Amino acid sequence: MKTSLVILLLVCGLVYADDQLSESSSECLDCHLSIHPGIVADWKNSRHAKTTVTEALQLSDLNRRISVDSVAADLSAVYIGCYECHGLNSADHADNFEHFGFSINVIVSPEDCATCHPQEVEQYSESKKAYANEILAENPLFNSLVEEITSVKSVRAGAVVHGKVRQNSQNETCYACHGTKIEVAGMLTMETEFGEIEIPELKNWPNQGVGRINPDGSRGACTSCHPRHSFSITMARKPYTCAQCHLHPDVPAWEVYKESKHGNIFQSLSSHWNWDNVPWEVGADFTAPTCATCHVSLVTGPGEEIIAERDHDFAARLWVRIFGLIYTHPQPKHGATFKIKNSAGLPMPTDFEGNTADAYLIDSGEYVLRENKMRKVCQSCHNAQWLEGHFEKLDETIAETDLMTRAATNLVKYAWNNKINNGLNPFDEPLENLWIRQWLFYANSVRYGSAMSGPDYATFKNGWFEMSSNLKQMENMIKLTK
Amino acid sequence: MKTSLVILLLVCGLVYADDQLSESSSECLDCHLSIHPGIVADWKNSRHAKTTVTEALQLSDLNRRISVDSVAADLSAVYIGCYECHGLNSADHADNFEHFGFSINVIVSPEDCATCHPQEVEQYSESKKAYANEILAENPLFNSLVEEITSVKSVRAGAVVHGKVRQNSQNETCYACHGTKIEVAGMLTMETEFGEIEIPELKNWPNQGVGRINPDGSRGACTSCHPRHSFSITMARKPYTCAQCHLHPDVPAWEVYKESKHGNIFQSLSSHWNWDNVPWEVGADFTAPTCATCHVSLVTGPGEEIIAERDHDFAARLWVRIFGLIYTHPQPKHGATFKIKNSAGLPMPTDFEGNTADAYLIDSGEYVLRENKMRKVCQSCHNAQWLEGHFEKLDETIAETDLMTRAATNLVKYAWNNKINNGLNPFDEPLENLWIRQWLFYANSVRYGSAMSGPDYATFKNGWFEMSSNLKQMENMIKLTK
Amino acid sequence: MKTSLVILLLVCGLVYADDQLSESSSECLDCHLSIHPGIVADWKNSRHAKTTVTEALQLSDLNRRISVDSVAADLSAVYIGCYECHGLNSADHADNFEHFGFSINVIVSPEDCATCHPQEVEQYSESKKAYANEILAENPLFNSLVEEITSVKSVRAGAVVHGKVRQNSQNETCYACHGTKIEVAGMLTMETEFGEIEIPELKNWPNQGVGRINPDGSRGACTSCHPRHSFSITMARKPYTCAQCHLHPDVPAWEVYKESKHGNIFQSLSSHWNWDNVPWEVGADFTAPTCATCHVSLVTGPGEEIIAERDHDFAARLWVRIFGLIYTHPQPKHGATFKIKNSAGLPMPTDFEGNTADAYLIDSGEYVLRENKMRKVCQSCHNAQWLEGHFEKLDETIAETDLMTRAATNLVKYAWNNKINNGLNPFDEPLENLWIRQWLFYANSVRYGSAMSGPDYATFKNGWFEMSSNLKQMENMIKLTK
Repeated sequence: MKTSLVILLLVCGLVYADDQLSESSSECLDCHLSIHPGIVADWKNSRHAKTTVTEALQLSDLNRRISVDSVAADLSAVYIGCYECHGLNSADHADNFEHFGFSINVIVSPEDCATCHPQEVEQYSESKKAYANEILAENPLFNSLVEEITSVKSVRAGAVVHGKVRQNSQNETCYACHGTKIEVAGMLTMETEFGEIEIPELKNWPNQGVGRINPDGSRGACTSCHPRHSFSITMARKPYTCAQCHLHPDVPAWEVYKESKHGNIFQSLSSHWNWDNVPWEVGADFTAPTCATCHVSLVTGPGEEIIAERDHDFAARLWVRIFGLIYTHPQPKHGATFKIKNSAGLPMPTDFEGNTADAYLIDSGEYVLRENKMRKVCQSCHNAQWLEGHFEKLDETIAETDLMTRAATNLVKYAWNNKINNGLNPFDEPLENLWIRQWLFYANSVRYGSAMSGPDYATFKNGWFEMSSNLKQMENMIKLTK
Repeated sequence: MKTSLVILLLVCGLVYADDQLSESSSECLDCHLSIHPGIVADWKNSRHAKTTVTEALQLSDLNRRISVDSVAADLSAVYIGCYECHGLNSADHADNFEHFGFSINVIVSPEDCATCHPQEVEQYSESKKAYANEILAENPLFNSLVEEITSVKSVRAGAVVHGKVRQNSQNETCYACHGTKIEVAGMLTMETEFGEIEIPELKNWPNQGVGRINPDGSRGACTSCHPRHSFSITMARKPYTCAQCHLHPDVPAWEVYKESKHGNIFQSLSSHWNWDNVPWEVGADFTAPTCATCHVSLVTGPGEEIIAERDHDFAARLWVRIFGLIYTHPQPKHGATFKIKNSAGLPMPTDFEGNTADAYLIDSGEYVLRENKMRKVCQSCHNAQWLEGHFEKLDETIAETDLMTRAATNLVKYAWNNKINNGLNPFDEPLENLWIRQWLFYANSVRYGSAMSGPDYATFKNGWFEMSSNLKQMENMIKLTK
Repeated sequence: MKTSLVILLLVCGLVYADDQLSESSSECLDCHLSIHPGIVADWKNSRHAKTTVTEALQLSDLNRRISVDSVAADLSAVYIGCYECHGLNSADHADNFEHFGFSINVIVSPEDCATCHPQEVEQYSESKKAYANEILAENPLFNSLVEEITSVKSVRAGAVVHGKVRQNSQNETCYACHGTKIEVAGMLTMETEFGEIEIPELKNWPNQGVGRINPDGSRGACTSCHPRHSFSITMARKPYTCAQCHLHPDVPAWEVYKESKHGNIFQSLSSHWNWDNVPWEVGADFTAPTCATCHVSLVTGPGEEIIAERDHDFAARLWVRIFGLIYTHPQPKHGATFKIKNSAGLPMPTDFEGNTADAYLIDSGEYVLRENKMRKVCQSCHNAQWLEGHFEKLDETIAETDLMTRAATNLVKYAWNNKINNGLNPFDEPLENLWIRQWLFYANSVRYGSAMSGPDYATFKNGWFEMSSNLKQMENMIKLTK
């Protein structure tokens, strides 16, 4: 049925003359339908292509998908077409250009999306995701790790020599998820079937990283999770979307989820769920959570009572940060974590001994508050005993894995102190590489396995087996090198 | 359609007054619908919520989903609601408690399910799955391995020191799949919106492991495969369910299946299959097998002829145990494998030289009989030549991988005999860790790859490439350590 | 609906008397329905079971699924049943046998499929896929690698000893995907419910590898991608099919795709796509590409304009070969790559220094032409800036990864030159094993990650992290061995 609808819409598209589409957007379609049919079809399937702001505002607060009370008159009565987004806030856009009589921005930024979705953009813009580029780029310690991993190396007389840091290899790796800083390098002349045209030349593009720095200075890419021109809530609720970045071996959220009972039910039964409803009702719309259920979505019970408020700060229901740097710690107060200073003056939330940089981290009140937000979601399907047992296990596992990181750290320190290794760069020797694996891969995996109940990840697959084996390997490497 | 049904049922739920639901269960729903809407919705979607035993018994033997001939009068004419299960056999349940006037068991056990499904419980209760907790807990050799993997370690003067054995890290890893022993530690007082209540405090909970030891002394958790309150046959037939435990790197059944032609067809076409039919008809209901098809389900042909009988002893159609301990061997006669004694008096099905503990393993008659049960399933879709070739390959691969384990074992013995390593604990040194990988990860993977035709697993991904490379690494480690 | 159809067809099958089915095929079904119900059901669901060539030829060129203009009279008016395929070209088939009065070939080969699909077979038959068996079997260097990996090894006095090369372990690994050479070893007598029958005994069977050498001398197995008896275009378009061979760790196309935005959209939304339409229309039939879209399928835009021609030479839209052997290089001119000679006279497309064997590789004109074919597919959904940026990144990544392979190669050469290792066999020592991983696993993964935009694969999961760490490990191993 949906398919026939798509075909119908596309056929209509060839003679699209809907008077709710603006004249400007209609002109865009005239050419772009034949050049980029995939983009146009994607948009035509979207809610944007069939809804005006005026219509959207007629829904009740709980059912509403926009968080603005009113928009400018010229936007309120038309469908959200090409020009309604690519023509916004031109003065702020370094990527703006003149295109067949229109003033067009290449990249639609969160600042533009905020025209209709200000609350979501506001929540997002103070989060770690929004600062994901700067979290790496502005932290000298992380820079050193990125350089160790991504610099092109050569060999002279049997010895590895580091080459210079390369933008490309960094963009293809760390910054692909964290977001690049898009720059406009000038104009590019292109031959097209409509004659010669000039378009802005973009550096560090394409990129859909969550902390992308856009040509208008804004941070983030809404298309990371609501991709391309469908802007779909379904996409953002499917775990495959989060899985593009939150995955094995450093953040195995996706793999652990798949192996959990939640993931088992999702994979087995979710073709019958309602993926598009707002609000999202436990039991009625879905029978097991996806990433979005626990971490972002507006979730309600059978009587429309709110179980969790929608929040695009993805840490709003997170209390402890199990992604250890290098130990677990309370969530940072603000997304700009590169501003943290630990006891040694380094931009890290803990020091080598595990002491936390408390001034920069949420306090115990906020900690309990956030944990309770999450517990309320769990309670929809789990009883009191289950909750008690689950969170107690998680707490113990956090403590145990921090001890296992501590053991590895003590081995590295022993090697540094005894001149077996050189601690000047803490990331560039084989022993140090094993140490990185201990906290970044193994301890993280065990904690994700505990938090989301995917036991295999906590056992053989980058879990306790590797965590213990790695420690013995480190010990052995020190012995052989001495 | 199904979705609207869910919504309809839930809406009805708010005024649920069906006279086929017992009064007791109706009272449960009064409170629990608002506290745990996910649980109630799950149950309302289930067959239990719409069927009485009397109705279930009207079906023919082949179509029947229960294996009892009659039940107590008070159970026969009502839907299978909350109290029909949580109120059974209270006297046996250490987790029983008084709850608003009802006598409630927290955990519904296989013993309770046997009220209507006695045959399934009986088959299961002698299987390796039922004994999965004790298979580890009662075997000193496995205990030693579990301890090596899961004990929290520290470092003193550059040396790794083992801490004490911890229940938590074991519960989060090995026993998460194998099943914990649930204990009632006393009572817990809780504040709820209905006032202060007392509930049993459970240790080693939550857990859904297949060999869980329940507070009534029974073994197993039917919810491992028929999870939570939907008790779905569809869930148990989907491979994602088995995949929670039978997966990479130690038992890569799921990964091999995904990469096999069977898995390819399942992933590509199974959204059109009939997942709920009993019996399950080859070709009509599905066009490629899932785990359940070959190992558990009642499978029939087009004329209702039985291709395979339903059997909840998952080894009923298995002859050889390719999960090598440490070599392949005929399936054990009984699930309580910790009672096996090999030639060295150790609780293992083979000794270090590969000799099998024959008295505890099935004889050649049973071996052939079980292999033929499986061959009959294969024959539904594969001709005689295919079968001959496939099973011949598997036999050769079993022999070859046992030789590769033997080679690794010989290297470890060489190191022990020459005091390069210390054999007192066979699992705690780096060389021994490589030896574990040889049989537990690599040899197993190659055999699963052969049995289920997933060649990549037999090649590069924990297959021959790693099996051969690992042997050379072991040899090299011995050289460097000498 | 489809399910009821399946059941209906099967029920009909019991009294199948359709006069468009040939008498011969009808006789096949009489017995085989009960012996192999899965095969028959698969076929009955297929287009073959409901279409005659005459009907198929009534479609327009663009909609047509066969590439022949006419067939022999006895084939044109009947459904494509058992005998229509298993009875073709008997004289060429060493696997032909007399079977209840019929002359039957066990294996239907591409030569047989060419009766109706000659263009597809012709395109395929000169491709690398068709030569996949010989690419290994006829290349002494690859033979040496295969032998190192798959020979059964033993241990004498603490040293690993290679056993003889085994056909079985090779068939279970490399040749499972590359294809075995099927041989007829004689006849086999079997007891069946229809009495004693004689069937050909096949060696190196079963196998569905893409370069299988069939008993009629032809190369390939159409069933690799259009499996068994459904011959489905849907199956071939689903990425799970390609994923059986093109996967982690050597060719991680599938894993990278899954983690890409393309894969994210496919996994989230593709249950609503049209998988069976010919031609396949961008936007209308699908909203993100699968493997087939970019590499094989006939893809059109909304006005039936052709975006890409169907081509069963899977390299027709590939310019650079990123599967480095051992460096990247222009695609070979012909599929029989074992005939290539590099500057050192070895059958490899590059030499140790990275110089390409130009005489055997496509020239710059063909290179640009093929890249432009691919760019045209991308352009359906991506604008000019995106394309420029994407292909520039890919080019840089190719150069960077080749440098990282070069560094590893220089370490191996250093070890050989300094007698730390023995270069006679370049694959059999631990250092050499790390070198193999550098180009076969890590450099490949980074390039696939770049080409298909799956950044995690380029980073931590067999990407830059491992590529850099591996180099340091190699350096360290040399130090420890000196």
